[in-house]
Amino acid sequence: MRNAAIMGYGVVGSGVFELLRDSDVLVKKLGRHISVKKVLDLRSFPGDIVEPFLTHEPDEILNDDSITIVVETMGGLNPAYEYTKQALSSGKHVITSNKELVSVHGSELLSIANENNSRYLFEASVGGGIPIIRALKHTLLSEEVSQITGILNGTTNYILTQMYSLGLSFADTLRQAQELGFAEREPSSDIEGFDASRKLAILLSLCVNKQVNYSRIPTEGISQLTYADFICASKYGSVIKLIGRGDIKDGVIEAIVAPFLVQSGASILAEVGDVYNAITITSSMSDDNTFYGKGAGKLPTAGAIVGDIADILTGNLETVEWGADEAEMAEPTDAIYSWMVRATATKEKIHAAARGLLDDSYFFEPGIENQTSFVTLPLKHGDFLSLLTNLRSEGVTIENTLRIFADR
Amino acid sequence: MRNAAIMGYGVVGSGVFELLRDSDVLVKKLGRHISVKKVLDLRSFPGDIVEPFLTHEPDEILNDDSITIVVETMGGLNPAYEYTKQALSSGKHVITSNKELVSVHGSELLSIANENNSRYLFEASVGGGIPIIRALKHTLLSEEVSQITGILNGTTNYILTQMYSLGLSFADTLRQAQELGFAEREPSSDIEGFDASRKLAILLSLCVNKQVNYSRIPTEGISQLTYADFICASKYGSVIKLIGRGDIKDGVIEAIVAPFLVQSGASILAEVGDVYNAITITSSMSDDNTFYGKGAGKLPTAGAIVGDIADILTGNLETVEWGADEAEMAEPTDAIYSWMVRATATKEKIHAAARGLLDDSYFFEPGIENQTSFVTLPLKHGDFLSLLTNLRSEGVTIENTLRIFADR
Repeated sequence: MRNAAIMGYGVVGSGVFELLRDSDVLVKKLGRHISVKKVLDLRSFPGDIVEPFLTHEPDEILNDDSITIVVETMGGLNPAYEYTKQALSSGKHVITSNKELVSVHGSELLSIANENNSRYLFEASVGGGIPIIRALKHTLLSEEVSQITGILNGTTNYILTQMYSLGLSFADTLRQAQELGFAEREPSSDIEGFDASRKLAILLSLCVNKQVNYSRIPTEGISQLTYADFICASKYGSVIKLIGRGDIKDGVIEAIVAPFLVQSGASILAEVGDVYNAITITSSMSDDNTFYGKGAGKLPTAGAIVGDIADILTGNLETVEWGADEAEMAEPTDAIYSWMVRATATKEKIHAAARGLLDDSYFFEPGIENQTSFVTLPLKHGDFLSLLTNLRSEGVTIENTLRIFADR
Repeated sequence: MRNAAIMGYGVVGSGVFELLRDSDVLVKKLGRHISVKKVLDLRSFPGDIVEPFLTHEPDEILNDDSITIVVETMGGLNPAYEYTKQALSSGKHVITSNKELVSVHGSELLSIANENNSRYLFEASVGGGIPIIRALKHTLLSEEVSQITGILNGTTNYILTQMYSLGLSFADTLRQAQELGFAEREPSSDIEGFDASRKLAILLSLCVNKQVNYSRIPTEGISQLTYADFICASKYGSVIKLIGRGDIKDGVIEAIVAPFLVQSGASILAEVGDVYNAITITSSMSDDNTFYGKGAGKLPTAGAIVGDIADILTGNLETVEWGADEAEMAEPTDAIYSWMVRATATKEKIHAAARGLLDDSYFFEPGIENQTSFVTLPLKHGDFLSLLTNLRSEGVTIENTLRIFADR
């Protein structure tokens, strides 16, 4: 019999509570009962099954030696950071879904865990129920990873799928997603791409064994997209996906989170719809492996936490940490992409301004009043910005610009 | 320093030899050198780098106490079965890609391994470089698995993809695949579906902790398919895929390997082309997780073997076995499917013979001389056979019949 505590009784925390309390499967499978002794939340839940376990006082968990497993599902940096440090320092295992905390303080927290022979596990922090952390750790035992690519955020993927299939505006789709519970009331960390860049930072930190600062990953969200962008993309046989991508070469990381045109047939990522996530690990021996599943949701995420608990109970765990040094990041301006540009102008004006920089195989008029879209050759960021300046000086109005996804 | 031996210097065995000999990555990652001491093969390889290590004598490996890891890449039941038993009995770890041996004698070999504190690992036996065995083992630590579904054979998926995209016959496509090395000279175990049913049997054995006899899985191959089937399928928005599927309910398995119509958008499996494999695990907490990658090939499969070696070196391994009892299999005749039937007949004749059994929303004439295709309602196998008898008695010629893939 092990005693556990849950810090944070939100969607994921309450899911873990239910799984640990009710699951005969779990008792049968794990061979022993995990008893939830305390649940921390500042709120009260009168009448809820959690009531007898609820505390508003973190010390009732942190100072209780009979509690050996702490599930941290509070989210946010503080006070989760302090609580986690305290728990790990006193030899408790901490299991978390908190991507912000792992991405910012992962190196320190893993090191505290290892010093105290405790474990800091975070499968639930990336990809919901997709076992990506476990797969990546195992790959890294014997292989070098050269690239991580994926659709890392379910909310934005749902919004993009709906915008395209229903022809709605971004604002209307977001509102609808919020009503259905697929987007939060305060959605900016999802829609501006920061949730995805935090997850990407965690995966890349594991790969290079250094701290990857998510704020140094160039990050663009999806709020500037319009239905016209999807129409243009579809004329190139493509969909628009919010892609997180990190290329690792000689220990240097080139990373980005941004909406990309993904051509159908060029990548399985083009086929990932709704709230699904998919993450591809490219490694030296195993080639590309893609992991696809629901990237969020109460049960899958809570299940990922229970999976980490199972690892602790079976003792089946290698030590994992990454160094405190900051990883070296490539200059974002050196990154080379082809772009789709949607502009209000005639073909002739565009040709005059962009001679030699256009992919002649792609040139398209979408039938939206006076607008044209075209695709550039692969360009460094500086050259692309010069092209836009040229175009503007010819009187071309740039409506939107989107990167084209390509293998490297 | 650990000594390893490789039994069978074919495509996969030679890949493992190269990885273990040449990889600086491996030494750096694993922290120690794995030295290949002996390679068993009946053939000689004059001038090949393997020559100094080659032996024709299994006892030089099996009786050498300095060899603690044996990689078995011979394939086939015998003599691999005897060699594996001997190696495990003397405490050597055995790592294999041999799906036939694992599917037939897995229970016994795992039990011998556990008695001798050795390990029998077989990640490479299913899905090439896709880490499906590892993921399934972990899922089973804390969850019940209710379904395994997948495209488990790269050769047939390549042939199906090519038949459809090039409009070729089965025989021509097979010949071309053989020339390109994507199909073996003796291709029957691939094209008749037995390779897939062996892999499915291994996955299901792990799920139910009993021996699943692959010969009891109803198995149909792809050799009877024609381009007309693909044309008809495409009119229903579907592609044809060789699907292996096992549903587990109260410990009873309903399994099948057969070509199915898979509707685009209904399952990610519809998007899996060429030599790729994809396998979905449906479990009680994590929902559906799909693992997608190259299901075969020298480097991915050899990489999966090296991944198992890494697990042995890090000691990061739970004990796995499945019981010797045979798993209970559902009666194949109880399985319920909708079918697409391609027939030579008029609509009227079909309607007369099949009243009440047709899905009225689907009825289609493919434009192939006098042929019609239609989709039935979900039917038990016996009812479907009666329908075919009725149709034949009305003078309808049945050209081909294919199951429709549906979620359960």
